Amino acid sequence: MSPELERRVFRDLSYGLYIVTSRDGDRLNGQIVNTVIQVTSDPARVAVIINKKNLTHEYISKSKVFAASVLEESAPMTFFGPFGFRSGRDIDKLSKVEFKEGVTGCPLVTEHALSVLEAKVIDQIDLGTHTVFIGDAVNAELLKEGRPLTYRYYHEHLKGKPSKNAPTYNATDKIEPQDYPTPERD
Amino acid sequence: MSPELERRVFRDLSYGLYIVTSRDGDRLNGQIVNTVIQVTSDPARVAVIINKKNLTHEYISKSKVFAASVLEESAPMTFFGPFGFRSGRDIDKLSKVEFKEGVTGCPLVTEHALSVLEAKVIDQIDLGTHTVFIGDAVNAELLKEGRPLTYRYYHEHLKGKPSKNAPTYNATDKIEPQDYPTPERD
Repeated sequence: MSPELERRVFRDLSYGLYIVTSRDGDRLNGQIVNTVIQVTSDPARVAVIINKKNLTHEYISKSKVFAASVLEESAPMTFFGPFGFRSGRDIDKLSKVEFKEGVTGCPLVTEHALSVLEAKVIDQIDLGTHTVFIGDAVNAELLKEGRPLTYRYYHEHLKGKPSKNAPTYNATDKIEPQDYPTPERD
Repeated sequence: MSPELERRVFRDLSYGLYIVTSRDGDRLNGQIVNTVIQVTSDPARVAVIINKKNLTHEYISKSKVFAASVLEESAPMTFFGPFGFRSGRDIDKLSKVEFKEGVTGCPLVTEHALSVLEAKVIDQIDLGTHTVFIGDAVNAELLKEGRPLTYRYYHEHLKGKPSKNAPTYNATDKIEPQDYPTPERD
């Protein structure tokens, strides 16, 4: 199985695009992710997959809470700038967008979001480069109706390239133009 | 958080639609699932979420291998009949579709599939009603180019209702018409 073939086949899998946030004391951070899934309905549990190198990973590991905003299809490329292409170690990402504080203390990004949800981590799985955080959903809010942004739509219309910290990244992506760098930084 | 609101918000999450298969000795089975995700790229690992009540769950638990077919958007409703609405305990689902044997021994459903992949289970997480099976990808084949079927497209165009065995099922779905029953049986 060549890396190229593997990458091509994996590209057929479907994902959304979300901002996942957490906090560590007074510090807030968030990042773009493509994997937020409901894993059970009774009780309502959700899972996110986060790269261990990311600041959001550090915050979720400490605080055991996370929030996710479901982005709308019409979110402009400029919106992804701070969340996708910068690290929270360098800038205060939350200062760039509208958000409110959730019941878990996590910032809920409301800008270009259809809905938000919050979860308390009940388990986590070490996958080597990434961790799956599984949480009980403790809050969900519908902000507006609209079409959710998908990872495929993002790549087809906003020309984003996978982040080197994304689960879907493959080293051969390096040979591609970096005009639209990583949408999943930190 | 009301069940209705929770369900509405969770509906904004994006998924694909796949057939996941496995085997137990000479017995083959498969089912429709909405969650097949790449969890890491180095090594290439994929995860599936399967209801414990399903026959495919029993087979994967025993054989520690599974395969997934990425379905094409043009797959007709009739195709989902045996895989989504029947149990492998009652019928031989694989006798209804084109498939070939993969390197893991799992049946690879090639009908209405864009690509197939196979994995060997390296870990599994008990989520109560469901199990997450995480596997090393050991084979991937591209069958043809096309648009992958998404869970949203299925619901909007093929009018499927969530299966009671799906992670995305919520008991209040019971009040909805059952003209298009569960797409995720066994």
